[in-house]
Amino acid sequence: MSSSIKRVVLAYSGGLDTSVILKWLEDQYGCEVITFTADLGQGEEVEPARAKAEALGVKQIYIEDLREIFVRDYVFPMFRANTIYEGEYLLGTSIARPLIARRLVEIAEETGADAIAHGATGKGNDQVRFELGAYALKPGIKVIAPWREWDLNSRERLMAYAEQHNIPVDYKKQGTKSPYSMDANLLHISYEGGPLEDPWTEAEEDMWRWSVSPEAAPDESETLTIGFEKGDPVSINGERLSAAELLAKLNERGGAHGVGRLDIVENRYVGMKSRGCYETPGGTILLRARRALESITLDREAAHLKDELMPRYASIIYNGYWWSPERRMLQAAIDDTQGVVNGEVRLRLYKGNVIVAGRRSEDTLFDDAIATFEDDAGAYDQKDAEGFIRLNALRLRIAASRNRKPT
Amino acid sequence: MSSSIKRVVLAYSGGLDTSVILKWLEDQYGCEVITFTADLGQGEEVEPARAKAEALGVKQIYIEDLREIFVRDYVFPMFRANTIYEGEYLLGTSIARPLIARRLVEIAEETGADAIAHGATGKGNDQVRFELGAYALKPGIKVIAPWREWDLNSRERLMAYAEQHNIPVDYKKQGTKSPYSMDANLLHISYEGGPLEDPWTEAEEDMWRWSVSPEAAPDESETLTIGFEKGDPVSINGERLSAAELLAKLNERGGAHGVGRLDIVENRYVGMKSRGCYETPGGTILLRARRALESITLDREAAHLKDELMPRYASIIYNGYWWSPERRMLQAAIDDTQGVVNGEVRLRLYKGNVIVAGRRSEDTLFDDAIATFEDDAGAYDQKDAEGFIRLNALRLRIAASRNRKPT
Amino acid sequence: MSSSIKRVVLAYSGGLDTSVILKWLEDQYGCEVITFTADLGQGEEVEPARAKAEALGVKQIYIEDLREIFVRDYVFPMFRANTIYEGEYLLGTSIARPLIARRLVEIAEETGADAIAHGATGKGNDQVRFELGAYALKPGIKVIAPWREWDLNSRERLMAYAEQHNIPVDYKKQGTKSPYSMDANLLHISYEGGPLEDPWTEAEEDMWRWSVSPEAAPDESETLTIGFEKGDPVSINGERLSAAELLAKLNERGGAHGVGRLDIVENRYVGMKSRGCYETPGGTILLRARRALESITLDREAAHLKDELMPRYASIIYNGYWWSPERRMLQAAIDDTQGVVNGEVRLRLYKGNVIVAGRRSEDTLFDDAIATFEDDAGAYDQKDAEGFIRLNALRLRIAASRNRKPT
Amino acid sequence: MSSSIKRVVLAYSGGLDTSVILKWLEDQYGCEVITFTADLGQGEEVEPARAKAEALGVKQIYIEDLREIFVRDYVFPMFRANTIYEGEYLLGTSIARPLIARRLVEIAEETGADAIAHGATGKGNDQVRFELGAYALKPGIKVIAPWREWDLNSRERLMAYAEQHNIPVDYKKQGTKSPYSMDANLLHISYEGGPLEDPWTEAEEDMWRWSVSPEAAPDESETLTIGFEKGDPVSINGERLSAAELLAKLNERGGAHGVGRLDIVENRYVGMKSRGCYETPGGTILLRARRALESITLDREAAHLKDELMPRYASIIYNGYWWSPERRMLQAAIDDTQGVVNGEVRLRLYKGNVIVAGRRSEDTLFDDAIATFEDDAGAYDQKDAEGFIRLNALRLRIAASRNRKPT
Repeated sequence: MSSSIKRVVLAYSGGLDTSVILKWLEDQYGCEVITFTADLGQGEEVEPARAKAEALGVKQIYIEDLREIFVRDYVFPMFRANTIYEGEYLLGTSIARPLIARRLVEIAEETGADAIAHGATGKGNDQVRFELGAYALKPGIKVIAPWREWDLNSRERLMAYAEQHNIPVDYKKQGTKSPYSMDANLLHISYEGGPLEDPWTEAEEDMWRWSVSPEAAPDESETLTIGFEKGDPVSINGERLSAAELLAKLNERGGAHGVGRLDIVENRYVGMKSRGCYETPGGTILLRARRALESITLDREAAHLKDELMPRYASIIYNGYWWSPERRMLQAAIDDTQGVVNGEVRLRLYKGNVIVAGRRSEDTLFDDAIATFEDDAGAYDQKDAEGFIRLNALRLRIAASRNRKPT
Repeated sequence: MSSSIKRVVLAYSGGLDTSVILKWLEDQYGCEVITFTADLGQGEEVEPARAKAEALGVKQIYIEDLREIFVRDYVFPMFRANTIYEGEYLLGTSIARPLIARRLVEIAEETGADAIAHGATGKGNDQVRFELGAYALKPGIKVIAPWREWDLNSRERLMAYAEQHNIPVDYKKQGTKSPYSMDANLLHISYEGGPLEDPWTEAEEDMWRWSVSPEAAPDESETLTIGFEKGDPVSINGERLSAAELLAKLNERGGAHGVGRLDIVENRYVGMKSRGCYETPGGTILLRARRALESITLDREAAHLKDELMPRYASIIYNGYWWSPERRMLQAAIDDTQGVVNGEVRLRLYKGNVIVAGRRSEDTLFDDAIATFEDDAGAYDQKDAEGFIRLNALRLRIAASRNRKPT
Repeated sequence: MSSSIKRVVLAYSGGLDTSVILKWLEDQYGCEVITFTADLGQGEEVEPARAKAEALGVKQIYIEDLREIFVRDYVFPMFRANTIYEGEYLLGTSIARPLIARRLVEIAEETGADAIAHGATGKGNDQVRFELGAYALKPGIKVIAPWREWDLNSRERLMAYAEQHNIPVDYKKQGTKSPYSMDANLLHISYEGGPLEDPWTEAEEDMWRWSVSPEAAPDESETLTIGFEKGDPVSINGERLSAAELLAKLNERGGAHGVGRLDIVENRYVGMKSRGCYETPGGTILLRARRALESITLDREAAHLKDELMPRYASIIYNGYWWSPERRMLQAAIDDTQGVVNGEVRLRLYKGNVIVAGRRSEDTLFDDAIATFEDDAGAYDQKDAEGFIRLNALRLRIAASRNRKPT
Repeated sequence: MSSSIKRVVLAYSGGLDTSVILKWLEDQYGCEVITFTADLGQGEEVEPARAKAEALGVKQIYIEDLREIFVRDYVFPMFRANTIYEGEYLLGTSIARPLIARRLVEIAEETGADAIAHGATGKGNDQVRFELGAYALKPGIKVIAPWREWDLNSRERLMAYAEQHNIPVDYKKQGTKSPYSMDANLLHISYEGGPLEDPWTEAEEDMWRWSVSPEAAPDESETLTIGFEKGDPVSINGERLSAAELLAKLNERGGAHGVGRLDIVENRYVGMKSRGCYETPGGTILLRARRALESITLDREAAHLKDELMPRYASIIYNGYWWSPERRMLQAAIDDTQGVVNGEVRLRLYKGNVIVAGRRSEDTLFDDAIATFEDDAGAYDQKDAEGFIRLNALRLRIAASRNRKPT
């Protein structure tokens, strides 16, 4: 098996785990490893990954700033559906995977690599998302998932392997290693594992990294006005910002006001329940704002249809099917509604709350024009309601007249 | 037309509007009026309605405390679906109407009345809800909706009519009349109209009646533990409470912490958009708690199916189809899942926030048993994930191998 | 009321009913009437309508051949969803109404007319379809529906009115008037009323006009090959045909083989059940063919999503909401899948049967390439199935281990 | 691995394949094999399986007639949803698997067996259905699927193994072995593989076993009247029959008239497309009849909701999730509608056609009572339609007045 792999593109963070994977791939497969490190706004420098990869002898190193692409082409399209998984989760990790999968495959094509590798475990969703994406984009690609193959399943063994293979370990950092498994990008930071495995226990305050607690937030609310065009946010308080700038700004302001913490138990695609904590300050603000704007600009039935399709759309993304025909189908339906979602929403941030304080739009279907509609010489004739009700009731009346009493 | 109506059951609040309707019905239809006044927890005494009805010469007066029935048989079944209309509205007004419709019809049957009457206008949802309910329960019933028939469409005319017909007007109360159209019951209080008609303007602080603002709420959070059985809440902090007591208690505690305010633009069934503000402290707490408990007790696919069906179930209730076969069908599906939704949720209320601090259940599908599952000699074999992914990817790989690149 | 209407565009067939309407409009509203007669493939000449309108003094007469537009822009897009209402009805009448509504509105704009009028009754679906379409396209338009207004509700009164107003009545034709209410266009011919009102009684053989009975059809089957591009049919037996030509040809061949008769009870949007008989030979053939081609070209999940959305899409069209945002949203999703629906389907027509005898496509996801896929050195590894099953079973196993035995 | 298995319950047909599996299990696992053979109406005697099992030394032999249980508790409940997979397939194989899985597990419990085994391959759906069922019912059960494990993947090797282990091979039968992979039970017989692997080629006439071709069917139609109670068929032509008797009778009559042949390409759960031919005479008749009866007895919205849920319900069964909470949820919704589905449907069978010739019910929502409704002094007031249409159009008119022209 190992002999057939000549060159592998590895999703490389520069951390201990993926450094071990790098060496292990060389050992096990006798192959060349190409590293790919992306800046998705995780809040850590990506350039140090270059030095580490070089130190490990890597010849081809890809380091890329994908923040704008990530927010503009993945986060915002997803948000157009007001997407939330299982009523709570804003899909911060899920939505980053398709982009990474795409770049891994593209780099494999550029470099003639025959495989890609990632550092996701065999119990989680991320392996699925990486691999479904890769297979959908390049069906013949080989995917190597070391955590499903090797026997380095404890921290001790991993450290031993690192030492044995001269992989530099930042012992100081390791010593204070967070007990949580974390993932971060411009949309969110997530925490799993360790003390969180008991769902009856509240997360420790010092776990949270992006936001203050509502209790510690300022005693004064802050007002923001977010401008939207075709369903996507484009400005804050009148200042036009790029997609990534805008989300970063909202993360900062939301985090300062204790906005966007979430503590849930979710259902993984691989079949188990899992406790996760998330901070999504900007995303939380945006979803409130989007709904408020859609409430005045979208047609009722279009809005309802979006709401009915949303849970499935969310599952599609959560499960890793971004690069699928069914996601594209739903996206086409969703995007079709967004041309009129233009306007502004005014919000107040206060100790964990995002309070909608106003919404307006040139494309509103609500306002004085409707009022005028109503008063304007019978444009709304209250007597119409009688016929409306009587015909809507007809089937129920017929049934009741047949002694079908509802219960 | 008027001649055929002999006796009418009127949904009577004791206020000016329904008092005028009472007289108007007698005048227009030459009929006897029977009044029905229900205590649904609106927070006003219902007994004064008796004296007022007597003063207006009513012979048969029904005054009923329906609070337990309302919460137990309407609010809680609805909540089993985590029901929210248009992503925000907890359906506080909508869910009260089917019960009132049922009682109006039942009283009509008891008293041999041939019609019912209500005080809802021709532009709103409530007329639809009352009348669909009535027709579904008693197909031959006549429904009189004076606001759609008469010409007393201004406050001045209404007052003049009242004076003319010796209907006592509480001028002091009228003088300070709220500019808002309000409705209240144990689930919520709602505000519409007046200054709210501009959706760009935030509601005045003095509009809100049930809750303090988050800013005015205590600086200390309060912890509550809510116990559930078969999907319905049964206790707070270990104290077993009746349905109505429990919701009243949560309204009180939530209101004290600024929980449950909502300011939205919604789509009415009659076709227009409408601004509404709502306070639903207890309901807001319960929905957070229910989701938290369902997150550990419900099967994934059952939970997802519930989430997909919910928007439609919400519309059915919002539009007034509680007494319909389609509502009953969905209820059967929803209720089928709730036998295992038993356990406790611990929450913290703090300045508008409802923070989930823990959930546990004898029926949990999450916890050490699963952990044991995972470590127990291959009960979860990470290698299974490879087959899982490869077969889930198969259709995507085949498509990609046919040059169908996803976009 | 009548005084405000100056000019009306009437959907005019040339028959007695719409001729009476023509006169009645002039009388009642004192307005000018403009007639619009469309050839949608109903199988009757439309030119005679010109002479009749002229004889009645009409100045502006629109007569249009809309057959290609009808099939290409309405029937075929609808068919892309394999659309069937209530499991049986191919929506032949429903799909013609949006086009007529559009032309009525456009002619009203061209001619400065302030109203449109149609001859549909107040109990049916067509009034709804005409009027929803008109209001969606021109919100201020007035719609006159004489059958809901006048008192000419019996054939006798109608005839008397005709005589009185010198409307020529073709007595010979009247004498043999069909007992059925009929509607026809290139997609189908429908029958309602009369002897059909008893759903226990089978339709008389002499009612059917477009098809022979299966019993009377030829004893030899006929083979057709239909070619498709992007989901729409483009050729028969290799001969490229326009949309209308193709459907007409299939109607002829299908009708000759007893294909496409339907006898159902359907639910009208206005609330009652109604018996209808339909002949849809070409449509019946096309739907079989389309499904066969989609079965080899569509991705599984896209196909399933289409099937789940279809009933709602069908109701939207049946109820008259073609010109709505929700129809457009669903159309966007449906159309997104059709780029790959290219290829050929071979069918045999035999005594009412449409038998799929073969399907092939350059875009197939089935065939030797997949076979190759399977045998090609483990491209399909049967062992993958174990992991696939085990992880799909995980949630069920966990539940069962908690004593949740399925029932 | 093998050492842990002491006793296995094998789904045993008595044929060569499962006889080889029997021996192979003993060899590989050193375990005792218990055989289970069910009569599901496949049309072959099951008793010969006893002699074969005895000859192979089996000590515990289960042979059971499950025909009534199969039809009554699996087929009929499934049919209540008018269930069809991918618009065509009546799920004849799928619906038998949950019952077999249940009996395998129950026998394992009775006999203290620690594993079950089946003869389904690693490329098909049946392995999934057997194993999901088994895991859902008994989470700790071991499942052995020899086709995924062994190397006897050609007919030659299988035959060699049989010879080597003294497994009697019916050479005469083998010599004329059908080129198709077949499965049969009271609901259908299926054909896959061999010449069917080219979807452009029509199946050979001599493949079909249960039905004559339409061409070969009688020249006279046959009329049947099927009686239903609570959604399930109970009688034919007035003769009350058990579930299995009724379906058997319909298979016979349908088959004689060329009814129920199907030739499709379907999407397997494991990710590939597959050509299948099916004969389902009785099921085809029943589905036509059920829809006809539901068309007069079901409420419109209940019927539509059933139709929208059906494709998902079908996939759940196709994919093997009969024993799941989501199937049970949907079943609860479906069953809730069926109490009124009582009455009779008259059908004519003629050369492949199932023609609905009449339907009637004590629970009808259609008929003279509705007619009376309509004429009875304004019970249906045509003027109601105007209000109905105007309010349904309101959102569209508002949008159009904002220059949102539909396209």
